Amino acid sequence: MTSWHMARRAERLNPSTIREILKITERPGIISLAGGLPATESFPVAALQEATARVLRETPREALQYAASEGFAPLRAWVADELSAQGLSASADRVLITTGSQQGLDLVAKVLVDPASRVAVEAPTYLGALQAFAPYEPEFTEIEGDAEGPTPAALDAARGARFLYLLPNFQNPSGRCLGAARRDALAERALEIGLPVVEDNPYGELWYDAPPPPPIAARLGDGAVYLGSFSKVLVPGLRLGYVLAPAVLYPKLLQAKQAADLHTPGFNQRVVYEVIKDGFLARHVPTIRARYKSHRDAMRVALEQHMPAGCRWNVPAGGMFFWVELPPQLDATALLPRAVAAGMAYVPGAPFFAGGGHANTLRLSFVTVAPALIEAGIAALAQVLKETLAS
Amino acid sequence: MTSWHMARRAERLNPSTIREILKITERPGIISLAGGLPATESFPVAALQEATARVLRETPREALQYAASEGFAPLRAWVADELSAQGLSASADRVLITTGSQQGLDLVAKVLVDPASRVAVEAPTYLGALQAFAPYEPEFTEIEGDAEGPTPAALDAARGARFLYLLPNFQNPSGRCLGAARRDALAERALEIGLPVVEDNPYGELWYDAPPPPPIAARLGDGAVYLGSFSKVLVPGLRLGYVLAPAVLYPKLLQAKQAADLHTPGFNQRVVYEVIKDGFLARHVPTIRARYKSHRDAMRVALEQHMPAGCRWNVPAGGMFFWVELPPQLDATALLPRAVAAGMAYVPGAPFFAGGGHANTLRLSFVTVAPALIEAGIAALAQVLKETLAS
Repeated sequence: MTSWHMARRAERLNPSTIREILKITERPGIISLAGGLPATESFPVAALQEATARVLRETPREALQYAASEGFAPLRAWVADELSAQGLSASADRVLITTGSQQGLDLVAKVLVDPASRVAVEAPTYLGALQAFAPYEPEFTEIEGDAEGPTPAALDAARGARFLYLLPNFQNPSGRCLGAARRDALAERALEIGLPVVEDNPYGELWYDAPPPPPIAARLGDGAVYLGSFSKVLVPGLRLGYVLAPAVLYPKLLQAKQAADLHTPGFNQRVVYEVIKDGFLARHVPTIRARYKSHRDAMRVALEQHMPAGCRWNVPAGGMFFWVELPPQLDATALLPRAVAAGMAYVPGAPFFAGGGHANTLRLSFVTVAPALIEAGIAALAQVLKETLAS
Repeated sequence: MTSWHMARRAERLNPSTIREILKITERPGIISLAGGLPATESFPVAALQEATARVLRETPREALQYAASEGFAPLRAWVADELSAQGLSASADRVLITTGSQQGLDLVAKVLVDPASRVAVEAPTYLGALQAFAPYEPEFTEIEGDAEGPTPAALDAARGARFLYLLPNFQNPSGRCLGAARRDALAERALEIGLPVVEDNPYGELWYDAPPPPPIAARLGDGAVYLGSFSKVLVPGLRLGYVLAPAVLYPKLLQAKQAADLHTPGFNQRVVYEVIKDGFLARHVPTIRARYKSHRDAMRVALEQHMPAGCRWNVPAGGMFFWVELPPQLDATALLPRAVAAGMAYVPGAPFFAGGGHANTLRLSFVTVAPALIEAGIAALAQVLKETLAS
């Protein structure tokens, strides 16, 4: 009888709540406001057809062979230029191409997190980051905040943490975008107390009213790691992200990358580079913004029209999510089966808090479903809430 | 001043010896027998052109969207059928598609290895596996062997190890293929002492004389994890591998996969499935075998013709590598700069031993370079060896 003995860290691996919910809600007929899936209508299929054909015609051997762990050099240079334009101090030799930015989160934790070391996170924070960090067995410290985001004074609770994980632009799940003054104040305080920052920016290009302020990492020099992704501005299924890391960390992140999957598919990197190299995103991303803005507005109107008194929500200036607080006596996890029975689905908010609690919160995605269905979905949710509150 | 504090495991991350050597030896004019790169002439470019075009024409939205962490269902079913035909007890629900089989090694270690727990390996063993396992801080136990591979009696040294890592088919680096009787005896002993086995098979299809015996895992039931790859039979640059895991491990491996990169690019999975679904590999792989067999024979002849007395090598029945033992007074790492100066490169053998030593060994790849250049490369190496032995 063979005895498998699992590592202690395996206890910290758990089924993804969201992915489990998505399985339930993928039934036909359910209006799912649960997933964070980009609208497939936004995928630039023609450009990708052209680029894949060109890569396979012009450089098939190079694109299909093993490749450098750092990533495809022209793509790294493109990323460095792009990040420099956002105010970051970026050079191609500090850009690491990753298999989605999820892999960037895994590598950062692999290199920086010891068991029982501390990682500071927002409350709420991105669930996928908690899942990437957890197997390295950190203690999470939640940073308190106000309506404008984490407060500079609250950073003191993170003193001695391996890093503070921040998602300043249209955060998943809260939709919150930090203002310029708050960014300045957070950066200043982080520098004062020597707190390293890992800044994650999957949604920054998805702004609907005005572009977000420059990255916090732009004020931190070698005190920050910055993560980005092509999933939300192009397509997620090619799994392309990147990490900009200070010189002191880059070699270890690179070695962790080699150990993890040798390199991100070179074919995918070359195809994306072919698509974007001549300014395609400057033409394409505005079409995504226009689409998602109309979706956001539809959800805002539907929420205002249907939701019962006592519910509160933000109006996100970008990204993909509304964040809803229900009256305190309601439990979004307990209510989900009733919402699904009523024909819609959302994601309960509790799993986004490292410290638990907040059972009365939920996340609604407005990008995947057409505006007419958004309204029907919100109406169904509101009806469930009203019935529950009345009983 | 920001203080980055690295995790203890980062000390176990080190530059890939081979990748560092490859950088040096990629200079034009060097005959590199160092890399383990498949011959680009073997890449089925036309089939991939057709498949990418079809996938982007017929299912672009599905191929470019986020996808299931387990992998593309038809590809998982294909893998299960393929492995069942090899004698494994395989079903699609225990197949996990990975970003190259390197990721399979990382996930296995993430789920199974605690700091100071033991992992048993062959001597020599695949360097990429040592690099994948090392950050999880195991103690490596080398299993002793004879000309036919690890000996069953030597497995007793692995009692209590989290697993024994085996590469039975045309091992990288030694080229060794275990015979059926040795596989039986190893499986029997592993079951007797309750030793879990992780069997890695990237090279099994690359046989030049006769197919290898069935996998050891076929005799171990739930006592084995089995890893495979499309890198050597199709192309490496799409980064597609797979893990077949017992039911007790599968959920944790899946959760580790979600945490690591959400999923392997769905586009890549669909393209490869389109290429292989109708029996393409049965026509394609024999062409790779014929090509590599002629390369192997060229290297065998060149070694016999040029190498000085006192050097020994195997003649691999498959795979990609000759393994050479130099006279004991020679150090392959120290000699490498002279070989490069003479116009050729190889990989020193020492890094392939978890316990170090074996400075007088080296690995030669015969698949990347054309047969005429193989002979020139071996002649150059032999000349360096003769000069060194004479001095």
